[in-house]
Amino acid sequence: MAKVVLYMSMSLDGFITGPDDGTDHGLGVNGERLHDWLSPGGVDPRSHRPVDEPSATVFDELMDTGAVIVGRRTFDIAGGWAGDHHDGVPIFVLTHAAPDEPAPGHARYVTDGIESCVAQAKAAAGGRDILLHGAATAQECLRACLLDEMELQLIPVLLGQGRRLFEDMPPDHIELEPLRSLDAPDVLHLRYRVRSEG
Amino acid sequence: MAKVVLYMSMSLDGFITGPDDGTDHGLGVNGERLHDWLSPGGVDPRSHRPVDEPSATVFDELMDTGAVIVGRRTFDIAGGWAGDHHDGVPIFVLTHAAPDEPAPGHARYVTDGIESCVAQAKAAAGGRDILLHGAATAQECLRACLLDEMELQLIPVLLGQGRRLFEDMPPDHIELEPLRSLDAPDVLHLRYRVRSEG
Repeated sequence: MAKVVLYMSMSLDGFITGPDDGTDHGLGVNGERLHDWLSPGGVDPRSHRPVDEPSATVFDELMDTGAVIVGRRTFDIAGGWAGDHHDGVPIFVLTHAAPDEPAPGHARYVTDGIESCVAQAKAAAGGRDILLHGAATAQECLRACLLDEMELQLIPVLLGQGRRLFEDMPPDHIELEPLRSLDAPDVLHLRYRVRSEG
Repeated sequence: MAKVVLYMSMSLDGFITGPDDGTDHGLGVNGERLHDWLSPGGVDPRSHRPVDEPSATVFDELMDTGAVIVGRRTFDIAGGWAGDHHDGVPIFVLTHAAPDEPAPGHARYVTDGIESCVAQAKAAAGGRDILLHGAATAQECLRACLLDEMELQLIPVLLGQGRRLFEDMPPDHIELEPLRSLDAPDVLHLRYRVRSEG
C-alpha cells in the first residue's frame, strides 16, 4: 500500500525557509543553508545526490517514490520542476483554483481538496510511496490524518526566522513512532510513522 | 572551564510546554507528555531517574552540573524546587526585580542581567558544567552568545500548541556542531555545541 511520506529539511528551530521566501528566494533569505547536505547541482533534482552513504540512501528513497504531492506555492516557487520532478512520475499540485494554462509536463492541478489529492496520488503511484513536499500541504495532510510517515532532515543550525514546518496546528497531540535515525555530515535524518490513534 | 548547557525536552514541532502553562500546569495542558522519558517520581528531581541506559546517562550528566541558571518564570512554576534542585548546588534565578522575600535554600535572585548571571554561575560551579533551564533564558543566552552547548530531548510527538523553545530570535544564523545523538525509548537525546562564529 502506497504511503504518503513528507520529506523536508528543517532547522533545529523548526524552519524550512529563511525569512521572505518567494520566487526570488525559494528557501528564503539565506535559507539555502538547509540544503547544504545535498550536493551542488543544477535544475535536475537528481544532480543533487549527496556523496555520503546515509544521505544518499535517503535521497534514493525520495527519488524512488511513485508520485508527488505538492502545494501550489511550493510548486510555483520551484518553477514546477519544468513538469518533471523525477522519472516522469505524476505530480499532484494542490490548489484552490487552477490557473488558465494547463500544468506543465507530468503535473496536474487538484482543486477538490486534500482527500481527493491523496486518493489520486495513491491510485497513480503504482504501489510505491508518495513524496509529499511543502509545509502548508503537510499541515493539511496531518489535520486530515492522511500523512503516513515523515522523513525529516534535521539541520544543525538555528535560522531564527522564516517559515515553520509546523504552525497553527490544533492542540491535539499527534503521536509519532520513531522508525530510523541516520547520522550524516551536516544532517540528521529522522523517520517517523504518524500514529493514527493520535 | 565550566560550560553553560541548556537542558530541555522539546516536541518535534518545537514546543517545551502545551498551551496555557502556568503554576497549575507547569508543562501546560497535557504537556507532561514531554517528560514521559523520565521515570515517575516525586518532588525530588532525583526520583525521576530513567531506567534505560542512554536516558540515565543524560540524566546523570544533568545531575552532575555544579550550578543552575533558570528564569524566574520557570523557577516559580517549579516551586523553586524548594530551594534545592540537586545536591545543594547554587541556583541563579534571572529576574527583572527580586521579590521582597529572599530566595529559598540555595537559590538567589540575579537582577543585573544575563552576563552577570552566567559569570556568577561559572564562578560558583567549581569547574563543573552549568545547567540552564527555561526557554526565555535560553533565548537571552543565545542572543548574548553565552550558551556553550544544548542537550535536547527530542520527543516523538507533535503538541500543536504551547510555548516554543526557539521564538522571536533575530534572523542571524547560529551554527551548531552535533556532538552526540542517543536513541532511547520515547526520546532522542541530541547534544550540540553552539558555534561562536555564528
